Amino acid sequence: MKLITGDLSPYSAKVRMQLYAMGIEDVEFDLPASFFMGKLSDYSPIGRIPVLEVAEGIIPESEVIADYLDDCYPEQSLLGSSPWIRSQVRLVSRIADIYLMNNIFMALPQINRKTRVDAVRDLLTGQITRGMGALEQHIGRGGYAVGNRLTRADCTLVPALFLCERTVPMLDVENPILATTHVAAYWDEIQGNEFAAKVLDEMDRGLRARQDGTERKQIEAAIAKEKAQRP
Amino acid sequence: MKLITGDLSPYSAKVRMQLYAMGIEDVEFDLPASFFMGKLSDYSPIGRIPVLEVAEGIIPESEVIADYLDDCYPEQSLLGSSPWIRSQVRLVSRIADIYLMNNIFMALPQINRKTRVDAVRDLLTGQITRGMGALEQHIGRGGYAVGNRLTRADCTLVPALFLCERTVPMLDVENPILATTHVAAYWDEIQGNEFAAKVLDEMDRGLRARQDGTERKQIEAAIAKEKAQRP
Repeated sequence: MKLITGDLSPYSAKVRMQLYAMGIEDVEFDLPASFFMGKLSDYSPIGRIPVLEVAEGIIPESEVIADYLDDCYPEQSLLGSSPWIRSQVRLVSRIADIYLMNNIFMALPQINRKTRVDAVRDLLTGQITRGMGALEQHIGRGGYAVGNRLTRADCTLVPALFLCERTVPMLDVENPILATTHVAAYWDEIQGNEFAAKVLDEMDRGLRARQDGTERKQIEAAIAKEKAQRP
Repeated sequence: MKLITGDLSPYSAKVRMQLYAMGIEDVEFDLPASFFMGKLSDYSPIGRIPVLEVAEGIIPESEVIADYLDDCYPEQSLLGSSPWIRSQVRLVSRIADIYLMNNIFMALPQINRKTRVDAVRDLLTGQITRGMGALEQHIGRGGYAVGNRLTRADCTLVPALFLCERTVPMLDVENPILATTHVAAYWDEIQGNEFAAKVLDEMDRGLRARQDGTERKQIEAAIAKEKAQRP
């Protein structure tokens, strides 16, 4: 199996955190130059990373990849044992995935104040606030997203809260974690978890590479290499 | 188990179609008057139906309910047997759920031309078009959403395509099914399936009840009954 992934991509970080926490080490990570040449649709019609390449074909969408990994490695599954616990893990993961991350991604173009449309920014940040409110009700109180051990809900929440904290203020809206009690306590505590710390470091590294121009140089080198290899 | 559901709600129709197709008959359907009195948050912090009430508490979000039902009734599961097939069922269901239905719901307030913000309408219908393009690539070619039998992907797609066909043109954007080949062929064929036909009838009935004022009368009667029962 090969995972098409990038350091900074929060949806990719989610899958990497799951792989680390499940102890799966035979998945290769790659980010082909074609991703930067506007050909991600070669990999996935949805046009987003991560994408998991398996023997039968490609699997896009981090949440679908997450379920596939649990299906393939049931002994290491991070989903919980009873239908009820599994439903709560899926629920918190979904709130983070759809109501937080997906809306934040749609809102990112509104960071630019010159081209911002307030109605778009307000619609999406309203959805994010609503999602954070639901998360505040459903999140666990013992240092983990659900119950008293790490689950897939943590693997989604950690990148989602990183994305929220780093980008929502750039929309000139207060970081919605600040208005919470239980989510804020969780966010403080989970950053001490080794797998959370690892993906947070990777996303930080990706952010620095974007900001200091290293990422651009890496992309240009990858594209040049790809072109040189063509017949 | 009790399902808080409404005829017209496509997310509710998705769960009902799954229950019908799995042959689960011991789930009661209900839509309490409090839903119409602005108290859905009594049931779910997310504030949407359907919600499944089980012994341990409430489960919101149709996709989470769908997984819970598969976990509780593994013999009747509509998810497929191999990890690969399950991933494809989850993928098509997710495209319908997030990229079609969720964006259509967010776009509904834009039906009103007097208050419409074009940038909001265009952002969301752009996402719907992109989702339909991905669906066109991933959808099965044999009359079902995935493979050669009914799966959970059909239970999501049927209400999603109903919603798409009925509401996107009201945004002054062409029904995106018309630009497809495989999705259009699927949509023609699946309407002959007995479980699809049943929920399509229910959604039609819900739409008529809204349009001809029956729904309003039912709501007023339910609220009056609820108030009369209070001490």
